[in-house]
Amino acid sequence: MHVIIDLCVVPLGVGVSVSPQIAACQRVIQASGLEHHMHAYGTNIEGSWDEVMAVVKRCHEVVHEMGAPRITTTIKLGTRTDREQSMSDKVESVESRLRDSP
Amino acid sequence: MHVIIDLCVVPLGVGVSVSPQIAACQRVIQASGLEHHMHAYGTNIEGSWDEVMAVVKRCHEVVHEMGAPRITTTIKLGTRTDREQSMSDKVESVESRLRDSP
Amino acid sequence: MHVIIDLCVVPLGVGVSVSPQIAACQRVIQASGLEHHMHAYGTNIEGSWDEVMAVVKRCHEVVHEMGAPRITTTIKLGTRTDREQSMSDKVESVESRLRDSP
Amino acid sequence: MHVIIDLCVVPLGVGVSVSPQIAACQRVIQASGLEHHMHAYGTNIEGSWDEVMAVVKRCHEVVHEMGAPRITTTIKLGTRTDREQSMSDKVESVESRLRDSP
Repeated sequence: MHVIIDLCVVPLGVGVSVSPQIAACQRVIQASGLEHHMHAYGTNIEGSWDEVMAVVKRCHEVVHEMGAPRITTTIKLGTRTDREQSMSDKVESVESRLRDSP
Repeated sequence: MHVIIDLCVVPLGVGVSVSPQIAACQRVIQASGLEHHMHAYGTNIEGSWDEVMAVVKRCHEVVHEMGAPRITTTIKLGTRTDREQSMSDKVESVESRLRDSP
Repeated sequence: MHVIIDLCVVPLGVGVSVSPQIAACQRVIQASGLEHHMHAYGTNIEGSWDEVMAVVKRCHEVVHEMGAPRITTTIKLGTRTDREQSMSDKVESVESRLRDSP
Repeated sequence: MHVIIDLCVVPLGVGVSVSPQIAACQRVIQASGLEHHMHAYGTNIEGSWDEVMAVVKRCHEVVHEMGAPRITTTIKLGTRTDREQSMSDKVESVESRLRDSP
C-alpha cells in the first residue's frame, strides 16, 4: 500500500526552539531515501506504508534519545486504490486547474 | 514505546455518509483488544506503538476492501519517556485542576 | 454556518506538563456555553462558526497570557449543508451500526 | 496576533477527485493577498489571526457553494509571542542546521 503523509513532530519539555529536533527528523527522513518535501509546518513523505511508518517511529525514537521527554505528532495520511498519484502529481493537478482558469 | 493516538479515518468517493466505514474501523479497533474511546471527531487508542499502528493500517485495508477508492486520515500521536500516562490519566489531570479551581 | 471541531492546543516552552494550560482552555470553552466534550487528545466543540472560532482565538490569548511563548494547535473542523447533525448524532450513527451488526 | 497555519480542506460527497475544490480554495487564498505555499497535503498561510481565519471560513463557503454537501478540514496553527518568525524563517532555521551538520 502506497502512502503520502504529512508529518509534524513537536517535542515538549525542550524549550521554545524545536529546530534541533526537527533537523534530526529531517536526517532520519533523508537517510530513508524516501521522496520528501519540507514546508513551514511539516514534511510530506511518500512511499510504501511500512517504510514510511518506520520513518515516523524512528523520528520519535531519535527525538526521545536527544532528551525530549514528550512528543506530540500530527500526521495526515492518504492512500488510494483507484490510481497511482505522487506528491508532485497532487500539486500539479491543482496548479494546472489554476493555469486553465485563474 | 507506548503511544496514545487520536485516529480520524475519512473515506472519499463513497458519498456523504461515512458511518459504515467508521463502524468497520471501530470493529477493527475492538478486535485488537486495545483500550479505546470514540468521540464525535475520531477515536482515541492506546497501546504499544506497533500494535496501535497495525490497527491504523488494518483500518485503511478494510475501508479500501469495502470499496472506498481513497482515504485521508488524520492522526495525533503522543509518546513520553518521563512517566507512564494512560488516556484516563490525561483527562483526569485536567479535570482535577478544574475541580480545584473551577 | 454550524461547525463541529476537535481542538487540541499544545503550549511550548512551558515544560513537560501542559495540564494548567489545557484546564485554562477548558474554562474558556465552558464560559462560552457551547456544547463540548473533552477526550484524551482534545476537545470536541459545536456551534456557529464565529462563536466556535472566537473560543479558539481566546484559548490562544489566554495560554499566551499564562506565559507560554509558543503554541501549536491542531483543529479538525466539519461543516455540512445537507442536514443538521450534532456531535451526539455523529457518535450515535456509528454506535447504532455496531449494535445492528456487531 | 500573527499566525502561521497549515490548511487542508477535504470535500466529501463530490467523488474521488477533489482538485476542483482545492483549486477554488487556492483562488480564495491568492485573492486574500496573504503569504502562502501549497504542498502535496495542504497549504501554509501566514498573516494576522483574523485575516487568516476569514480565508478558512471563505474556503468552506466557496466549496459548499460549488455543491459539496460536507467538508472536513484539518488545520495546524502556530502563534508565538517571543519573537517574529515567518514561514520562510521556520524552514531556514531547520535547513541551516542541516547545512552546519549534515
